[in-house]
Amino acid sequence: MARMTNSAGAQDPHLWQPRFSGIRTFARFPYSRRLDGVDIAIVGIPFDTGVTYRPGARFGPAAVREHSSRIEQYHPVLGLDVLAELSVVDYGDLPVVAGYTEQSFQLIEDGLRVLIEAGVIPIGLGGDHSISLPELRAVAQRYGPVALVHFDSHVDTWDTIWGTKYNHGTPFRRAVEEGLVDPGCSIQIGIRGSLGGPGEFEQSRELGFEVWTAREVRRAGLAEVREAIHRRVGASPVFLSFDIDFLDPAFAPGTGTPEVGGFATWEAQELLWGLVGLDIVAADLVEVLPDRDPMDVTALNAANLVFDMVAVIAATRRERRYGAVNGAQ
Amino acid sequence: MARMTNSAGAQDPHLWQPRFSGIRTFARFPYSRRLDGVDIAIVGIPFDTGVTYRPGARFGPAAVREHSSRIEQYHPVLGLDVLAELSVVDYGDLPVVAGYTEQSFQLIEDGLRVLIEAGVIPIGLGGDHSISLPELRAVAQRYGPVALVHFDSHVDTWDTIWGTKYNHGTPFRRAVEEGLVDPGCSIQIGIRGSLGGPGEFEQSRELGFEVWTAREVRRAGLAEVREAIHRRVGASPVFLSFDIDFLDPAFAPGTGTPEVGGFATWEAQELLWGLVGLDIVAADLVEVLPDRDPMDVTALNAANLVFDMVAVIAATRRERRYGAVNGAQ
Amino acid sequence: MARMTNSAGAQDPHLWQPRFSGIRTFARFPYSRRLDGVDIAIVGIPFDTGVTYRPGARFGPAAVREHSSRIEQYHPVLGLDVLAELSVVDYGDLPVVAGYTEQSFQLIEDGLRVLIEAGVIPIGLGGDHSISLPELRAVAQRYGPVALVHFDSHVDTWDTIWGTKYNHGTPFRRAVEEGLVDPGCSIQIGIRGSLGGPGEFEQSRELGFEVWTAREVRRAGLAEVREAIHRRVGASPVFLSFDIDFLDPAFAPGTGTPEVGGFATWEAQELLWGLVGLDIVAADLVEVLPDRDPMDVTALNAANLVFDMVAVIAATRRERRYGAVNGAQ
Amino acid sequence: MARMTNSAGAQDPHLWQPRFSGIRTFARFPYSRRLDGVDIAIVGIPFDTGVTYRPGARFGPAAVREHSSRIEQYHPVLGLDVLAELSVVDYGDLPVVAGYTEQSFQLIEDGLRVLIEAGVIPIGLGGDHSISLPELRAVAQRYGPVALVHFDSHVDTWDTIWGTKYNHGTPFRRAVEEGLVDPGCSIQIGIRGSLGGPGEFEQSRELGFEVWTAREVRRAGLAEVREAIHRRVGASPVFLSFDIDFLDPAFAPGTGTPEVGGFATWEAQELLWGLVGLDIVAADLVEVLPDRDPMDVTALNAANLVFDMVAVIAATRRERRYGAVNGAQ
Amino acid sequence: MARMTNSAGAQDPHLWQPRFSGIRTFARFPYSRRLDGVDIAIVGIPFDTGVTYRPGARFGPAAVREHSSRIEQYHPVLGLDVLAELSVVDYGDLPVVAGYTEQSFQLIEDGLRVLIEAGVIPIGLGGDHSISLPELRAVAQRYGPVALVHFDSHVDTWDTIWGTKYNHGTPFRRAVEEGLVDPGCSIQIGIRGSLGGPGEFEQSRELGFEVWTAREVRRAGLAEVREAIHRRVGASPVFLSFDIDFLDPAFAPGTGTPEVGGFATWEAQELLWGLVGLDIVAADLVEVLPDRDPMDVTALNAANLVFDMVAVIAATRRERRYGAVNGAQ
Amino acid sequence: MARMTNSAGAQDPHLWQPRFSGIRTFARFPYSRRLDGVDIAIVGIPFDTGVTYRPGARFGPAAVREHSSRIEQYHPVLGLDVLAELSVVDYGDLPVVAGYTEQSFQLIEDGLRVLIEAGVIPIGLGGDHSISLPELRAVAQRYGPVALVHFDSHVDTWDTIWGTKYNHGTPFRRAVEEGLVDPGCSIQIGIRGSLGGPGEFEQSRELGFEVWTAREVRRAGLAEVREAIHRRVGASPVFLSFDIDFLDPAFAPGTGTPEVGGFATWEAQELLWGLVGLDIVAADLVEVLPDRDPMDVTALNAANLVFDMVAVIAATRRERRYGAVNGAQ
Repeated sequence: MARMTNSAGAQDPHLWQPRFSGIRTFARFPYSRRLDGVDIAIVGIPFDTGVTYRPGARFGPAAVREHSSRIEQYHPVLGLDVLAELSVVDYGDLPVVAGYTEQSFQLIEDGLRVLIEAGVIPIGLGGDHSISLPELRAVAQRYGPVALVHFDSHVDTWDTIWGTKYNHGTPFRRAVEEGLVDPGCSIQIGIRGSLGGPGEFEQSRELGFEVWTAREVRRAGLAEVREAIHRRVGASPVFLSFDIDFLDPAFAPGTGTPEVGGFATWEAQELLWGLVGLDIVAADLVEVLPDRDPMDVTALNAANLVFDMVAVIAATRRERRYGAVNGAQ
Repeated sequence: MARMTNSAGAQDPHLWQPRFSGIRTFARFPYSRRLDGVDIAIVGIPFDTGVTYRPGARFGPAAVREHSSRIEQYHPVLGLDVLAELSVVDYGDLPVVAGYTEQSFQLIEDGLRVLIEAGVIPIGLGGDHSISLPELRAVAQRYGPVALVHFDSHVDTWDTIWGTKYNHGTPFRRAVEEGLVDPGCSIQIGIRGSLGGPGEFEQSRELGFEVWTAREVRRAGLAEVREAIHRRVGASPVFLSFDIDFLDPAFAPGTGTPEVGGFATWEAQELLWGLVGLDIVAADLVEVLPDRDPMDVTALNAANLVFDMVAVIAATRRERRYGAVNGAQ
Repeated sequence: MARMTNSAGAQDPHLWQPRFSGIRTFARFPYSRRLDGVDIAIVGIPFDTGVTYRPGARFGPAAVREHSSRIEQYHPVLGLDVLAELSVVDYGDLPVVAGYTEQSFQLIEDGLRVLIEAGVIPIGLGGDHSISLPELRAVAQRYGPVALVHFDSHVDTWDTIWGTKYNHGTPFRRAVEEGLVDPGCSIQIGIRGSLGGPGEFEQSRELGFEVWTAREVRRAGLAEVREAIHRRVGASPVFLSFDIDFLDPAFAPGTGTPEVGGFATWEAQELLWGLVGLDIVAADLVEVLPDRDPMDVTALNAANLVFDMVAVIAATRRERRYGAVNGAQ
Repeated sequence: MARMTNSAGAQDPHLWQPRFSGIRTFARFPYSRRLDGVDIAIVGIPFDTGVTYRPGARFGPAAVREHSSRIEQYHPVLGLDVLAELSVVDYGDLPVVAGYTEQSFQLIEDGLRVLIEAGVIPIGLGGDHSISLPELRAVAQRYGPVALVHFDSHVDTWDTIWGTKYNHGTPFRRAVEEGLVDPGCSIQIGIRGSLGGPGEFEQSRELGFEVWTAREVRRAGLAEVREAIHRRVGASPVFLSFDIDFLDPAFAPGTGTPEVGGFATWEAQELLWGLVGLDIVAADLVEVLPDRDPMDVTALNAANLVFDMVAVIAATRRERRYGAVNGAQ
Repeated sequence: MARMTNSAGAQDPHLWQPRFSGIRTFARFPYSRRLDGVDIAIVGIPFDTGVTYRPGARFGPAAVREHSSRIEQYHPVLGLDVLAELSVVDYGDLPVVAGYTEQSFQLIEDGLRVLIEAGVIPIGLGGDHSISLPELRAVAQRYGPVALVHFDSHVDTWDTIWGTKYNHGTPFRRAVEEGLVDPGCSIQIGIRGSLGGPGEFEQSRELGFEVWTAREVRRAGLAEVREAIHRRVGASPVFLSFDIDFLDPAFAPGTGTPEVGGFATWEAQELLWGLVGLDIVAADLVEVLPDRDPMDVTALNAANLVFDMVAVIAATRRERRYGAVNGAQ
Repeated sequence: MARMTNSAGAQDPHLWQPRFSGIRTFARFPYSRRLDGVDIAIVGIPFDTGVTYRPGARFGPAAVREHSSRIEQYHPVLGLDVLAELSVVDYGDLPVVAGYTEQSFQLIEDGLRVLIEAGVIPIGLGGDHSISLPELRAVAQRYGPVALVHFDSHVDTWDTIWGTKYNHGTPFRRAVEEGLVDPGCSIQIGIRGSLGGPGEFEQSRELGFEVWTAREVRRAGLAEVREAIHRRVGASPVFLSFDIDFLDPAFAPGTGTPEVGGFATWEAQELLWGLVGLDIVAADLVEVLPDRDPMDVTALNAANLVFDMVAVIAATRRERRYGAVNGAQ
């Protein structure tokens, strides 16, 4: 069953708003373009021109919002009310020009820079994975090269595809080339699927990333992977990027380039909950493709994973204030 | 193809907002709870406890909003820019208490009364057809008994179902009993489907309504039906109620009690366009059930029919100002 | 909205059974294997081994039953309560051996013969169209060669397909060869779609059938087709066979060999309602394929068309008792 | 592949009934309203007015029946033929009044009491989880306060939602208040998902229930949970309640308030199989929502879990007769 | 039912290939990259970067091929075996660079030029409507400015969208500007839907096109529109462009920018069949979006409309050889 | 994201073919009917008349091809480029006669014998599981009785169903009776689901097969099962048969007789990868039913499992040439 919005028990029915009603914002957080006092902004980036296979992720933000409506503010695993720790808003969507990648990258970078300069942690709702490049451009302007914590079935470090340099297969090579990401404190987790050749398998390691294939994750166990992330990242500012195809297609059919043999949602959550303590300065969740998601499970998972990100940031902040408490250990 | 939002050609990309992006309001009309200067308010009424068969229409407002996003302000058949004639807002949803009909009816009536007292014409997005009763209660407080122009496959004038008086099969009998509707200037159009007995067939006529079955509409032709509506209604204030199951299930599968042998969307539109000149004081479009609408065609049709209602009201207002112009004749 | 089951207004709630509840029989007619006093028996024939393209119609009977649940006993167009005129039961399904055509044909013929010998008019729910052959074998044993009134997009009079004589493309050629159908008083309506050659176009006419293509139906108009059927059939005993692919794929996507450019449900209904007066001794409705019917519109149409068949038989019986009354003229 | 109905090898094809054919009852158990000699009755309770989010579970019983058709009588894990141990029937559906909760609760309680007074163990097919309250009222009349074994992602022990006391979020608080359930020997398993606040997390424990979150189940392991259930319940009469949203949305998308991070079906089965030995006096499986279940996997899982419940009751009975045998240890 | 492939009745089963089997080419026409002796080539153009709303039409060619498999070579309305008149092949797909419009336009133009220089009539399977521009560039190189016969719900003559000149809203303005199309002998049919302003309504007429709105088509009747096309086009070489959103969303849900109030498939076919006699030198059918087409009706319609185009070209050729024969008059 | 076809970086765009484009062959391996030099041929066997429940697997080959398009040639777990080791082609589909089992079995056996006599390893794409019998007939002619490695939820060793000997529940009993399979070195893995009686549970063991139920697999662990296979099979020539219903319905909803409580794809892959070293002489993957697979996850899984089979055969060949290398241990 779903729960009432106002657990404090407002007596006036006009203050109640059932979870199935109302204009859709992420988790019913307030829609705001004002940024003063805001800690985290959920921001849609409806750009999917960067895909090399199945497009449609431009509708990802709308679907994630729609299926976030039952999310409430208390995270029982991390043991906190995120709205008691942080101010979180839905900032709406950034402008893009569908079909025009470089023009859109500029708009995304410009749009995100406003948030970052205001000291807000943006969580981008993709859109395809190419958006991480302009996001990182905005991030690096303030933070310098950041650590990348990257959940995905693909490394996304190709050089070119069909001779073009900007698409959803190349953002993290570009980010290294442009000095936006420090591969030496970065990590990619969940990699799997057939390839064009062994070179593709090694290209991320050659760039300097630590790479965990899906099989390596299973063999080592989730706890070991959580430790590996902390070891790798340390105190660096972190860009957290979650491609929904990290999940198995049974859990995330609604994505453009699904890879079989992936992870259950609870495994992804265990890994995310383990990120408490990292200095996350920006994040995104990408590649949700609603037209392939007839049961909306992909969008539902995505919405909850974004909420987990919010809670991890809140728990980290609480930890810094009060020292570690008994969260998801 | 879809069209840009700002036909005037804004140069600043930040002013563009592609139709696939942004927080969803109806047709991207502004969300507003302020009513001063507002002519028409689109208002969701996510109540479906009144259904006797398949529930789920509480998600109707969200789906209609989502699939209204490509609607623009110029109506080429009626030849007008609705926003040049009228101020139209999306008012969000009224509060309801799912599972509790009478309590919800009170909330709906109270919510709608605020709009009507402000001189706003509300267009309710259902929700099931039982909501027409509390809507009419609010309407009649200001306008007295109104003319009902009712498109539906069912007459909705049963007395009780399973011994209960308030559900989506009874609103218009209740409305007559409560003096909210004047059946003598009211009309029901599109009726069809099997019944429990001949009494059910005649019950609306006995209450005083003019009734056109689907077969009678086809035999007479759309032009004759348009004339019949005007003849019947005259100058009375009108409550316009459109049950999406007026359409054939091929055009509106997403509804709770579909009846085969119905109408194509273009036929519904021809009839709606013919309402220019009526004094519509309130309207609703009900029984959109998104979970039965995998291709979203029902919601798309509903959104366009609501826009047609807005345009008809705008054209009527223009006609009153400037005399009849060449609209949809 | 849906209507209550007991329009007479039973006071005991235990006598009410909402249309969404209970074990599914066709239109909630009683399930019975007893035949004394029964006029019409709805009988499932879940056989689809005869298909040459997409199988799955073995699940047709279950889907048609499920989506017949809102049908009630009064037919407003023909103006009668079918249960006041006739005793109608759901007889369940005949046994078949999936994958074994000739063995199944024997079981179907044997099963149907029991009904026909008991004086019952069977209405078969297919299954694929090959079942019409064993049905006709049972029918002709009692009635001799019958008139075929056949709604379909295909003539189903091929000689062999892949060298085999028994499948859903051949039943009516076999029926003529076996002397089960008198083509001279038979008619096929709605034919369309590409062919292997001109010979396939003429094969039915060469066998002696009157054939109306979809285009000819549209050019002549429905009233003319109704007259043509009566002219052709006269007083002969009639086997009425309705292939759901007579309807356009927008109205009946759930079928194995859909042909574009077909008819709306209301057109099919107008034609069926025109059959009052014919001496229908058996009927079937075939080729409903639920796995291609995500919105259940095909099954809903099929259920209503079967109810129309029941009502036509009832109206004919009433007409014979009391003379013609004002039904669907 | 599916298996023949009559493994004993009946020679008469008329005794065969393929699993895809025939009127749908649960697992093709006989439909019966007579209760003499009946041990277990599967009974549909198509009530969903109690939902706070997405309705439609009133169609749960029909969907579960449809997708139970391939279930046969021998349970290989528990090693028994359930029909050799027990008499099991499908009792059809209880009457309800859609939209009217308290009236329906009375009908459900009255309907179930008939079964319980006859010494039958009812297994209710929901419907939403609010039905557990009237079920428990009927159960407690005979057995006094019972132990609740409750699989769910939600505790369902809220006090009020939108000011109302009777809905699918409150049944087990009401049951404690009314003395129907003894929380001291009751247990809730699988709890997860965001909340309105920490109070909601603790409310069940404050009422006296033992609560296992999803995370605690995973950390302890299934065997430990099985032991915990037996420790908690002991020899008390048990009401077993399984909300299908215990399963992960990938396994049960068709439910009204899905929570990500749930369990695989095989995990649920391992837990259910471990219940052999408990004194189950009534059970239900709730919240199956067919309109969100395009592949019917939810209904298929639900049908099999209900069969597992039947087999557990049969195995317990056998164990009491013959002592423990080598079942699912 | 479906028909056998080899109506001539080959005896060797190895020569039979059921319509559900084999590698998919359009209508099972041979796949060929050789062009000598070829009259018509079906050619996929899987480009959808030009869309302004919902992408995915890059999968259109695959879906149209899949659902063309039951099409056979004899067209009964036009009365000819297309393969007896013409040599038709499936040429596969042209290369494109997803996400890069101008680079793709060059590849499309280059690819099509090969066909046109070889004297082949190409029928392009889109892809979005922007592909008509590079197609026309290739066409005009050989034929000079051509007549456009354009079925669509949109005029596709915008100047820029979001400041960009090349997308699916602009191809025919560009084509006029580049001298590829002679608007004075061109015609657009089926236009409807809301607009940004009255200027958008008139922009095509200002460019010189004859425009028929959907409403004007209905008021004049199909026969009048057929005549208007012939009057307008005369003996000019024709580029025939069919946007599947000409059809109503009930008939073509699987498209990116559906407009309600459109046409049934049979109406589209009547119009296409009326084109016999025109000098069609190239054609396309665009905007089929399989991810929005769960019942595949859109793809099925598209495949049949392409076959109708092939048959019209064949019938025109026959007419030129033998004079007019009794085709679809 | 998806990857480019030509990782070597061809400069000519005409050599690129995006994964979403082109005529569909399995994994875009070349279509070929020539067999010289071919090591492995993927061959569709679109026969589903053998099913006892839900048909439609005749469309399995087309769906698996469609969703294999993103598979590339390098297998990172086994560490090899399959096309560097082997020549693999798509051979198209074998002829069958839908509805006629024995005639089809002959065609399948004849068709497969051509491949086997040419020294090719065929991997059959079903189609239902009955096809394994004619496949084994062809295999045994060359290799004598083979070892069966069989992944399935059903043993498929029934004697007769509805009195018939040839269907998808009987192939492996028939194969033992005909001396095609040596049960003493054969193994069945994944068995689960309800049965008609205990005899059905033991029938495979009585025939001599080693049988692992799903529960036994889970209790022993995947590594132990891998060892058990090698122990059982040794150096025998192997027929590898994978029924997609080995997977849980959440991972493979698109199949005719799904059984709950099954395996995740990654578990199936771990088991398949463990087969390196076996002498696989033929294989099949059966029971993919696209009409029950709205998200195409079943077909995607099937395509990848077939690719895993190819890679296992390649790795075995490499191992024989060079000795064991560090593949998937």
